[in-house]
Amino acid sequence: MKKNALSALARRTTLPAISWLMHSALTRPKLISLAAGFTDNATLPVEISRQLLNEILSAPKTGQPALQYGITAGESNLRQLTARHLQKLDGADDRAHSPDRVLITGGSQQLLYMTLEALCDEGDVVLVEDPTYFVFLSILQSQGIRARGVRLDRDGIDLGHLEKVLARLKKSGQLRRVKAIYLVTYFQNPTGVTTSFAKKRGVLALLKKFERAAGHPIYLIEDAAYRELRFAHVAAVYDRRLSDGTMEVRRSQTAATNCLEKSALMVPGAGRNVIYTGTYSKPYAPGARVGFGVLPEPLFTAVQRIKGNHDFGTANLLQQLLARALETGLYDRHVAKIQRRYRQKARVMKQALAEHFPPDVEIWEAGGGLYFWARLPQNVSTGIQSIIFRTALKHNVLYVPGEICYADEPSRAKPDHEMRISFGSASERDIREGIKRLGAVLKKLVK
Amino acid sequence: MKKNALSALARRTTLPAISWLMHSALTRPKLISLAAGFTDNATLPVEISRQLLNEILSAPKTGQPALQYGITAGESNLRQLTARHLQKLDGADDRAHSPDRVLITGGSQQLLYMTLEALCDEGDVVLVEDPTYFVFLSILQSQGIRARGVRLDRDGIDLGHLEKVLARLKKSGQLRRVKAIYLVTYFQNPTGVTTSFAKKRGVLALLKKFERAAGHPIYLIEDAAYRELRFAHVAAVYDRRLSDGTMEVRRSQTAATNCLEKSALMVPGAGRNVIYTGTYSKPYAPGARVGFGVLPEPLFTAVQRIKGNHDFGTANLLQQLLARALETGLYDRHVAKIQRRYRQKARVMKQALAEHFPPDVEIWEAGGGLYFWARLPQNVSTGIQSIIFRTALKHNVLYVPGEICYADEPSRAKPDHEMRISFGSASERDIREGIKRLGAVLKKLVK
Repeated sequence: MKKNALSALARRTTLPAISWLMHSALTRPKLISLAAGFTDNATLPVEISRQLLNEILSAPKTGQPALQYGITAGESNLRQLTARHLQKLDGADDRAHSPDRVLITGGSQQLLYMTLEALCDEGDVVLVEDPTYFVFLSILQSQGIRARGVRLDRDGIDLGHLEKVLARLKKSGQLRRVKAIYLVTYFQNPTGVTTSFAKKRGVLALLKKFERAAGHPIYLIEDAAYRELRFAHVAAVYDRRLSDGTMEVRRSQTAATNCLEKSALMVPGAGRNVIYTGTYSKPYAPGARVGFGVLPEPLFTAVQRIKGNHDFGTANLLQQLLARALETGLYDRHVAKIQRRYRQKARVMKQALAEHFPPDVEIWEAGGGLYFWARLPQNVSTGIQSIIFRTALKHNVLYVPGEICYADEPSRAKPDHEMRISFGSASERDIREGIKRLGAVLKKLVK
Repeated sequence: MKKNALSALARRTTLPAISWLMHSALTRPKLISLAAGFTDNATLPVEISRQLLNEILSAPKTGQPALQYGITAGESNLRQLTARHLQKLDGADDRAHSPDRVLITGGSQQLLYMTLEALCDEGDVVLVEDPTYFVFLSILQSQGIRARGVRLDRDGIDLGHLEKVLARLKKSGQLRRVKAIYLVTYFQNPTGVTTSFAKKRGVLALLKKFERAAGHPIYLIEDAAYRELRFAHVAAVYDRRLSDGTMEVRRSQTAATNCLEKSALMVPGAGRNVIYTGTYSKPYAPGARVGFGVLPEPLFTAVQRIKGNHDFGTANLLQQLLARALETGLYDRHVAKIQRRYRQKARVMKQALAEHFPPDVEIWEAGGGLYFWARLPQNVSTGIQSIIFRTALKHNVLYVPGEICYADEPSRAKPDHEMRISFGSASERDIREGIKRLGAVLKKLVK
């Protein structure tokens, strides 16, 4: 028998769960999907984009460069605007982020992929939040990288557990294989948790401590994909909750800076160890896919070269669209609009959950982003093969089973009693109806 | 001393020559670049794109899906239009190419990258034309894949040499590491050579013959990036030249089908072994980067999954733009326009070469694409360190040194007496002036 010619990477690359979920959502018209991480359709910037593209393409002088090749790292104008945008989010001064370290990519997903290519060999280790963004787990699996989970608290990773995990890896001689820790720091996918600035500082201090034994830098990959999708009113709630312990929160809570917590880039002396990934997909438009990263050397050069092989630069037309949206202030105005929209949808979901979910389901309410996290009693499975999942699907409602967000982690059984519920793409009516259906399933099957 | 944490892949990934060349072209305003593979600025479809994007974004019904996420494999409409487009190019009937095997990507470059990821492990072998597209060599080098060169004739690869190379690999026990042969079949980059259909058939027959010993399929990767950039008048010349031997050419030469040679997909029984990559970047707009591939199983599924990890689908807005351009016929009209334009620029270059280049430089004149290939006497170096290259740069004219298009091939010294000269982006005036400057340098330094 002839074998097929596929590589080890291809054989490791399983169907990403997200493809299946997206496919389900797009092909079953009656299905209410509370699963896919799609953004709100009604507020997509259709008219703004029409207007801006019209301007760009109204004259050869601006239209031709937009339709031509560019530089691998991205259009210098957009790199500058992105650095300035981050300074605003971080409430920082003009020099805080250098455009020279900004790399423009086809969404932040592409940056994550290339960063792992640049950092990791097969068998290397990347630490992740437990649970974490499931497509990130797919990339790790595909590239043959081992994931190790670190427990997640309501304000970010458990620093005590992180130290334990690192110490254990050191003891077993595997610390030299540890290349990075990956944190989704704002309204995390899937739990909605936001990492406090104090925790970011704590993580970086721990990485520093173990670096010598590792023999090389251990990077913090900060995924800030949902950063701009915050709800002002919930930020205040966070403020109250977190002000018990940490002080940094309050300082970054001014309305003017539009940020919730400073990025890890702002931890003094941390620039060399932080890879920051962001995107314009979620706050602006996924269909005009533009993401970006801020990378220290030698990562910046390495990833830029890898991008040269992937596609020698993200489509200029999309870069020009985003640059013009940022320049004209239409971007900011649009973000303010979708923040209100998502806040409203989250409110609707919260009310529906209170009304329809059984009381023994614990809800983690997010202060932004697209997701609520629901935790059922530990003995109840929400997995793809579970009765709950299949019954929900039969009633035409879909959620993301929590289990797919957990790494294959030898030190614990994989939790399978949770669900990610998204209010991103569903209409208010569908949110109400979807939660009602899901609640009915849970009331029947839990206990 | 601490080492950096970079992966083996990152350490192998050198600065792609194309980045350097693009950078030179974009940052030295007085430089006449006959190097970069940019397309003609003046004919970029600025007004067409404005009009089509206006239509798409004029109503929520079409605008919202264009700004939303889609399916990893690409928009079904564009996949269908692409299959139909290929049928037209191949002069084939409706069922010749299935939309289900069409994958939409961010340019054909991304498809090449992912195809190699799906096929090759470190140490595997891919056969390439000698010389070949240099960014493809960069990808091979980055992924740790060994390239083996096969001699190139004026009508495609030397089949006798291909058989010798395969036999040699078989003898040395390395045939099982051979995964594919990569051919740029239309107006090849860098030589302008077009592979005859007879040769494609010959290549596939040889691959078949050696497959059993390899233990797995050996794929033909057909890169058709320049396929649509043909000059009608030169096609006729080709027709005359090739009609001495092959019959297939004539049949595919009808004006209606707009093709020069059928693709390898049309070789009977070959579908299982051909990976076809094409792009809308070159014929439409590089700044609206959309490419595509036709892949057999298990490659289609493998590459689709890998794309799920890269970016879960190419930006929808660009896909919708291309779909509408194809649907409305504006795409075809635009391609006809740029064919005339490139034909004219190639004529200008031909005249300038005849006037200014010394007679002992052999010119390979292309029937399409963006490049002429100039071969100097064997003892004259055109390399980046050569007197000719540096003197040319001093006179503000840039070409692609032939040597970067050759694989590191143990069986021969790397030829370094050639140059790729592009008429793609330079104006007619700059083509004349650039060739004049280059000719003066050569007249002085050759012999």
